[in-house]
Formats: sequence, C-alpha cells, structure tokens
Amino acid sequence: MDDMSAAPTVRRELKGTAYGRPAQHPNDTLTKVGPGTPCGEYMRRFWQPVLASKTVTTRPREVRILGEDLIIFRDGSGRPGLLYPRCMHRGTTLLYGHVEPDGIRCCYHGWKFSVEGECLEQPCEPDGGLNREAARQPWYPVQEKYGLVWAYMGPPDRMPVLPDFDNMALEDGEVYFASDSSLGAHGDPNGPEVVPYSWLHMNDNVMDPFHVQVLHTTFSGTQFVKEFGVMPTVDFEYIDNGVIYRAYRKLEDGREVDRVSTWMAPNIMSVPSVLLSEGRSNGLGFSVPVDDTHSRILMTMRVRPDFNMRRGTGMESMKPWSGRTLEERQDQPGDYEAQEGQGPISLHSEEHLATSDRGIAMQRRMLERDIRKVMEGGDPTGVWFEEGAVVHVPSGNFYRH
Amino acid sequence: MDDMSAAPTVRRELKGTAYGRPAQHPNDTLTKVGPGTPCGEYMRRFWQPVLASKTVTTRPREVRILGEDLIIFRDGSGRPGLLYPRCMHRGTTLLYGHVEPDGIRCCYHGWKFSVEGECLEQPCEPDGGLNREAARQPWYPVQEKYGLVWAYMGPPDRMPVLPDFDNMALEDGEVYFASDSSLGAHGDPNGPEVVPYSWLHMNDNVMDPFHVQVLHTTFSGTQFVKEFGVMPTVDFEYIDNGVIYRAYRKLEDGREVDRVSTWMAPNIMSVPSVLLSEGRSNGLGFSVPVDDTHSRILMTMRVRPDFNMRRGTGMESMKPWSGRTLEERQDQPGDYEAQEGQGPISLHSEEHLATSDRGIAMQRRMLERDIRKVMEGGDPTGVWFEEGAVVHVPSGNFYRH
Amino acid sequence: MDDMSAAPTVRRELKGTAYGRPAQHPNDTLTKVGPGTPCGEYMRRFWQPVLASKTVTTRPREVRILGEDLIIFRDGSGRPGLLYPRCMHRGTTLLYGHVEPDGIRCCYHGWKFSVEGECLEQPCEPDGGLNREAARQPWYPVQEKYGLVWAYMGPPDRMPVLPDFDNMALEDGEVYFASDSSLGAHGDPNGPEVVPYSWLHMNDNVMDPFHVQVLHTTFSGTQFVKEFGVMPTVDFEYIDNGVIYRAYRKLEDGREVDRVSTWMAPNIMSVPSVLLSEGRSNGLGFSVPVDDTHSRILMTMRVRPDFNMRRGTGMESMKPWSGRTLEERQDQPGDYEAQEGQGPISLHSEEHLATSDRGIAMQRRMLERDIRKVMEGGDPTGVWFEEGAVVHVPSGNFYRH
Repeated sequence: MDDMSAAPTVRRELKGTAYGRPAQHPNDTLTKVGPGTPCGEYMRRFWQPVLASKTVTTRPREVRILGEDLIIFRDGSGRPGLLYPRCMHRGTTLLYGHVEPDGIRCCYHGWKFSVEGECLEQPCEPDGGLNREAARQPWYPVQEKYGLVWAYMGPPDRMPVLPDFDNMALEDGEVYFASDSSLGAHGDPNGPEVVPYSWLHMNDNVMDPFHVQVLHTTFSGTQFVKEFGVMPTVDFEYIDNGVIYRAYRKLEDGREVDRVSTWMAPNIMSVPSVLLSEGRSNGLGFSVPVDDTHSRILMTMRVRPDFNMRRGTGMESMKPWSGRTLEERQDQPGDYEAQEGQGPISLHSEEHLATSDRGIAMQRRMLERDIRKVMEGGDPTGVWFEEGAVVHVPSGNFYRH
Repeated sequence: MDDMSAAPTVRRELKGTAYGRPAQHPNDTLTKVGPGTPCGEYMRRFWQPVLASKTVTTRPREVRILGEDLIIFRDGSGRPGLLYPRCMHRGTTLLYGHVEPDGIRCCYHGWKFSVEGECLEQPCEPDGGLNREAARQPWYPVQEKYGLVWAYMGPPDRMPVLPDFDNMALEDGEVYFASDSSLGAHGDPNGPEVVPYSWLHMNDNVMDPFHVQVLHTTFSGTQFVKEFGVMPTVDFEYIDNGVIYRAYRKLEDGREVDRVSTWMAPNIMSVPSVLLSEGRSNGLGFSVPVDDTHSRILMTMRVRPDFNMRRGTGMESMKPWSGRTLEERQDQPGDYEAQEGQGPISLHSEEHLATSDRGIAMQRRMLERDIRKVMEGGDPTGVWFEEGAVVHVPSGNFYRH
Repeated sequence: MDDMSAAPTVRRELKGTAYGRPAQHPNDTLTKVGPGTPCGEYMRRFWQPVLASKTVTTRPREVRILGEDLIIFRDGSGRPGLLYPRCMHRGTTLLYGHVEPDGIRCCYHGWKFSVEGECLEQPCEPDGGLNREAARQPWYPVQEKYGLVWAYMGPPDRMPVLPDFDNMALEDGEVYFASDSSLGAHGDPNGPEVVPYSWLHMNDNVMDPFHVQVLHTTFSGTQFVKEFGVMPTVDFEYIDNGVIYRAYRKLEDGREVDRVSTWMAPNIMSVPSVLLSEGRSNGLGFSVPVDDTHSRILMTMRVRPDFNMRRGTGMESMKPWSGRTLEERQDQPGDYEAQEGQGPISLHSEEHLATSDRGIAMQRRMLERDIRKVMEGGDPTGVWFEEGAVVHVPSGNFYRH
C-alpha cells in the first residue's frame, strides 16, 4: 500500500543523461590472455605460479591458466606434472587417469605418460606400440619454489630462470605459507578459489594506496588497522622491473612511517605487513590470469609455523566473506566487491584516471611497452636468463627515528 | 517391461510433416528494445514505470530496463535516483555504494554523486578534485506518480510530460496498490519479479478477449469468474492513442454486460475488474521490456486499504504459482504458461493470425506506424508535452439496464 | 604450511611442449546433426528410436532429437504423436496442451491437432474456423516396435520401412525390456537420461574391444566379468550394413570363446551378453543424437519378466553412478567418464588412431561414404523399402567345442 502520487517536477535542462552514451570497451591489449594474444604471449615469457605445492598431489586435478585447460598432478616419485588434458590417443581427459611412480595412465586404453609428456606404454598395441617413442603428450615444464608450483608456458627457446627474490630466503624457524585460493581478494579460506574478473583488477589495486583509506577504513569500518584512516602523502617511482610507491603517514602517536609497496612485471605484488609492523615485506603475491574474465590470486610468505593470517586485523572480528549476504557485502564491501564490481573486465575506455591513479597509469605504461617489445621479438623487463639471478624487493614499513 | 512390438502401419502419403520447414524469426521491429533499435528508441520516448515506489529505498538495487543495467536508490532526502551502474572514476558498481542525504558514494575511492549525476566529492584527489565540476555520472530523470517510480530514458530535448490518467484520481479513503513483480503474469507475490519473455507477449494478451474463455475458464477451470465461460461477441476499435475492445456477454441470469478493455501505446493496459464488478477500471498495467527476452509486468490500482488481489476469484483456492510442479502447471496453465510457452521471443513469421486476433493486428499496426514515425524524426502517438495533460481511459464493465 | 623451496632444475631441451600447438577441431561431417547438415540429413533417412513406449503417455513431454525440439505424447486412443512444439496459431508450446481421444488441444486458444498434424478445432473462430482444413501443425510419422517409439524425420518421399532384426523375435515367455535413459553409458536408472557428448563417442565405443580389457577390468576393477581381463585377439570385418569384430579369448579354464559384436549403420549396436553367456545377442542399442553435443543411449532386449540388468556383473556391488563423488569416479571410471572425458565433441583432428582402433576407422569410413551418397541424392546403406525386410544380426558369444 502506498500513496505517493505527486505533481511531476520535471525540469527541461537535462545535463549528462545516460541517453545516447557511446559504447565502451576494455583495453584488450592488457586483458586478453589466451595463446597468441599480445598480453597472453607476454605473460607466457615468465614463470607463473600455478598452484601451491601442497595442492598438487597424486590425485589429478583440472587447472585453467592463461586461457588453457590443463591437468596438474604429482607422479608417484614426487615430480609435479602439467599436461594437456586430452589424451593424445583418443582425447579422453587425463583427469580420470591414475598416477603411477613414473607418470599417469589414461583410463580408456591405458596409454601412460611421464611428466614430460613421453609415452611410456600403449598396452593394447601390438608389441606395446611400435611408434611409441615418437608420441608425446603436450606438456609444460614446472618447478617448485617458495611453496608454489611454477610453470613456464612460453616458447622453449626463450625460457628464463625463475629468480630468487631477496626478501624470500627463510630465516631460522620459518616456513613458507603459500595460498592459491585468492585469499588476497576475500581473505576467506572458503571463498572462491578463482575470482570472476580480469587479472588486471587486482593488479591495478596494488599501486592504489588511496583505496586503503576509503574502502578498507572509512567506508567499511577498519578492515586492517585504524592507522590506515590517516590519508597518506604518496610518491610513485619506477624501478627497473616495476613500480613502487612510498606512502608517508604521521600517526596520532607522533610516529612517522614510510610504507613502501612494490609491483613487479608482469603481475607480482609485494605488500608490507597490513598491521604496519616494522620491517621489510616477507611475502609475494601474484594476480594470475585464469582466462580473460577470471583470475587466481596466489601468495607466499615466510612465517612462523603458528601464523594466522587474520589475527590482529579488523578482519578477525568480521564475518567470513563466504557467509555474508548481499546486504552485508553492501554494508562492508572489501577488495572482492570493489574489483568484482568493475565487471568481468572493466571498460577502460570510460575510466577517468585522476591524480591519485598515477601508480596505475605507470604500471600500465610499462606493461604496454613490454607487450610491444615481445610482439616485436624482444624480451620483456623482469626476465632473467643467468642462473642465480636475484631480484631486489624494496617493500616494507619503514619508521623514521 | 513392455511388449508392444507390432507390424508397422506406415502410409506413404505424408502431408505437412516437419521435415524441411523454413527457418522462422521474430518481428525484430517490435521486439528489439536496446539503445539505438527502432522499438528501443520508440519506447524511450515515453515515461516508463521502473519499480513501485515502495521498492526504491536507501539500499541501492540493480534494475534492468530496455536492455540497460542501472542502479536505483532513494537518497537520504527521499529523492529517487537512477544511475549508470559503473562509477565514472574506475568502474566499480554503485551497488556497493552507500547512500547519504545528498547522493551515493562509491565504495572504492569515495566519489559521491547526486541523483542527477553531479560529482559532489572526490576525497582522494588534491583539493577535493579540481575538475570535479565537469564530472558527471550518467543518469536518467525520474519522478513518482500513482505509487510508481517512472523514468524518462530518451533524448533530453524530446522529454514529454507524464500525463494524468482520468481513471486514476484517488477517491475518498483510497490508496494506490502498486506492484512491480509481474503479478499480472502469475498472480503470485513469490513468483518471478521478471518474466523470461518479450514484452510483446503480454502486450498481445491484453487485446485478446478470447483466451479468457479458453485458457482461464474452460481449459484450466475457473481462474477468475465462471461468467467468462460465455464466449463473447467482440468489437475492436481504434482510439486516438490505442485500441479498445467491447466484449458483449448475455449472462445466464439474463444480465447483459459490455466489457471494455483498453490498450494504450506503447505498453499500457487497462483491464476492468476480473470479477465483472460494474463500473470503470480502477487501474493501469504495463508490460515493460527488461531486455529483448525478459519483461516486468507492473500495475497500479486505486483500492481500499484492505484490498486483497486474489479474493473473490477462482485463484483464491488455487495453489500459488511458485509452489506448482510442472505437472500442475500443465493441468492448469495460466497467462504465465501461455506466454512463456511462446518462447523467449515468439517466432512471428510462423504465426497464423485469425479473425479472433484482430485486436492484436491493430495494436501491432499502430506500433509499427509509430516506430517508423520516431525513426523519421517525429513524435509518436501517446506522448504529451503540455503540463496537465489528461488521458481518457474508457475501460470498464458496463451493464445494460 | 610447507617448505619446499628448492633450486630449479630446468633443462634447456624442451621437446613437444604444449606451447604453440595448432588449433584442433572435431570432424564436423560426422558430428553436426541439425537439419540441413550432412550427417543430420543422413541420420534422417533412417527410423530413429525416440523414447521407450512406456515413457510416452497422455502427458505431453518435451523431447530433443537431431537438434530439433519436439513434443511427444500418446493421444487418448493410444496413438503416439510427435509434433513441432509451437502451436501454429500463436506459438504457445503444446507442452501445456491437454490430450483428448483424437489429439492435443493448445491451452491458449484451444486449437486441437491430431497426431498427424490436422487441425480439428478452432473454438474462438467464427463457424469453427473456415480455413481450418488447410491448417497443419508440423508433425513426424511415428510407429512402435520392440518396446520403442520410432520416428522418421526425413524427406517424405524417401521414407523406408523399419525392418525386422533377426535376433529380436520374442521367444516363449519373453518380453521386451526397453530403456531410453542412457543406461548404456552409466548403468544407473537415476543417471542422466541424456549424456552431454556427441553421439559419435558411444558409437566409436562399440567397435573398440580393447577398452573392455583396460577400462572395465584392469583399470577400474571388474565392472562386468573377470574373464574380460584376458586381452583378446581381434579381427574386424565389414558386413553389408556395418562392421563386426570377432574377439577370440582362451579362458583360464581352457574354454575358448569368440565374442562377436556388431555395429550397423547409422548408430545401431548389438553387443552380446556381458556375462559371456553362450549364444546370440538378445538386444539392440542405439546412440541417438539429441543435438551436436548431447546424445541418448536407448536399448531394447528380449528378456524373462524378472530380468535385472546389473545382476551377475561386477556392477552389482558398485555404488550407483549418480551417488559417486568425483573422487570415486576418478578411482573407478567407466564408459561415462571415458566418453564424457572426450569433451562435448571430441577434437578428431588431434587423435592418433592406432592398430587397435581399426574398427573405429572402418565405421567412420562407411559413415563418411554414405553421408556423401545422401548428399549426392542417393540412399544410404542400411535402408530398406520393401515391406517385411529382415536384417541379420551376427552378434553373440560363441564357444568352440
């Protein structure tokens, strides 16, 4: 029941209405990631983390990365394998294969493949398969480091080394805490493992220190620590293989802190402690494209064995993301809402980047330059070929004394 | 277990089989409603009801209309707003925005917009945003009347007035009962708010007095009143801005009644009391395109505060639509089944319109003529520009005495 | 928690990686089945089983076959009908129609149609519809045999007879056990009635005697009988209208058995007893295209009234398919997993058919030859026009004595 009839109060001057607005579109150069696309070929020139080591077991598992559907497993000797899913014989998925000490066997006719795609057995063929040696199940090279399984999905003759990151060497008693379930987007172990939006949304987010003050503090209540309520003074700066920002805050208690965050090409983030603890960052994060409209946020940290990610933050007392209603997510939106809210792929042609978005503009400039480099046959920034390469990660919370 | 083998009794003369029938298609002129389409531009020249006033609150809500996704809300001062959903800054949906007295604030970086799209704040920008005045979130003008929120989504320089309908002025003690959840299709408050078929299906239905005798009475049992079991004598007639029919029935008790129903361009229906109560119609209905394949049936009525829509009809004793199985819907189909059963968009090229479909043919002729008018730069029938315009609605059940 | 950092052990020689592999595609000639496609027109030249007779009742039901959506029902006189779903009048689906002794009546305006598409009534039209005789609801001829309802969906002037199969005449006390719910794929009455992959996957399977030894015996545990663990010696041979194989096994107890299986064009399978019982096959199976990416496995058998399909096989003690988790299906995959695991349509261009796939190659050669014949105006192998035609089915388990 309602009774709201009222004289219309229509004015004739209608500025900027939504009528007749032009069609908008994403920046395809930065967001298409399948084989043969500019960004897809660029991304394939780096080792990409696929899953946490602990997730990769002798039970085969489907995984989608850079628009490709693959099967990941660990053979009976402990070696991880990443194979094209359709058995080269008659196309049945290796998801139903059984793992043996030296490889995986297809369920339909028993062909067996090693983690490097060699065909080890063809039991229904005369003499075990006379052309067996020539057969090869398509595969990708993988290695394990920092608690993650990494893959190289690019051209074989351009395979770089996976470097050391100088903030990641374990100190006494430390272990790696690695996550592959997009905790960085929603903080909830029961949240979606893959998030339904372009990798670029999270990648933009890391060079955006201002949303911390709005989204995570004044808008939604304190999601990390209340000190983020101080609007910082921010400088952005290029480093060799990325962009950093220095956010200076004078806290209420008189202390002054420089918070340095790092983005490294193509999709590596190193954010310092969200508790504003003093010292260098102890971790790395990755916004890995699953396909054009989905991504997986992985991360790895050096921690004490009793580490608990939510402890000490405002998140500790919040309802876990997966248990919230739409209304609760509206009342207290976080990174997931802000980024999913940009759509499956944002429409970059209608953005209005402002002064506070300078870090994002710098990242995208470097990405577009390096994508062009790869298209022209060169190697992108952030790729190393010498064994033992070490990358410096400048991130940290540095207090002025 | 079965035992039905039998000699085939195949005859060689096979007339009109389904083999090789030509491909069929909808009437696109009448059913495509997105921006820039002929019917879409025509529909945008009218004020369209979006939702009931009571549905529009300070909690932002997604609404889709004429193929456009929008955010609707009521600001803290009570003004309804209808905005393009993606924040003009970096594209996060305003669904996660918070409403303030003078507008809505985006969750990501805190930009705030009025219901007319003005940018009121840019908190992360130096000096609050030097170019803030030039910024504009795309918006549409809205107003409230008859318990509904109406929007004008057309070209600003052709905005008409929203007229008065001469059957809708409240009488003593009356209130408006407005519904935006497609009750007119399924009669069930728990039924789908949006129905999965073209707006034209319900629009056809209103000038189709014969289905009342079949679908609603002899086929499914009495859905309204048993008097509809009398097949009427029907005349169709153009009025200035639509089509009416006069269905004459001589009832069993000797009474004679003329039932007059009205369709007004572009999608307005005024059906008299389904209880055959004497007098003029006390309401209006609307078949509003959500997109090409979905629609929302809105309605508003002048009623006593204790009004109950199902009371006194055959529907009162029927199971609510949302609780019925497919079998129950097959046993007693209603308007929803008949219209959803035409598919997402009917294939008009294969229809066989007959004598009883004359009202539908007249409606479509007027629609096609006016769509052409708009394409050629003119104004359609049923649009008024003078303040205080009043539209006469001839509908009612008129007994001959 | 994990601690797996390790020096990368990358080798530079990367043979056969998945990078840069060419795009692959299905064999469209064999897998597109809609109207007007080569395989679709070929398939339409045969009587195809649609559903089991017992499934077709006076309650109308949607059925999809060869890419066409149709309504199937049995009229009040017991005649099955297969009609185009959209009422020829205004397009409402006949799913909501009511069956009468002589046909089906549309819910919207009451037009009534016979099982041969004649329009019997138009109640809202003056004089019951003056042009009623000319109206025709599109229909297909159907007949019942062997417990199944069969349809002919091809050109009327090429309609063949539905032949007798010489293994299907009932013996004393036998009845037909017919199934239309793809039991042949998953063996579970509660499994999906339609399977989500091309008809060709199951069709390939029937001339593939080797997977029985791998998939059904050594890989997943004994799904039928342990004797299938003996790898057979196999000969393939063309017959007039198909392909057969003879799989010879010398069993542990010294007995020798020839297992003969038959494939008949276009999609008919006759597999002998999976218990290796002596004698001719007592059944027929069919891999019927629902559309390009879905199929329905039908079958019919002569059996004793107390027949139970799972009894005596390894399946008897296995959990029913529909109750299994992904992990359980990985541990013990069966035909469903192997065939669904080939994708909605396999990518035939990347197959590596080997010596053991000779039967499949022979089938496909016959199919492609006959599809070409039909495209050129001829009749395919396996079609008979003389009444009383009888087809010989050579299948059986034949023991050497």
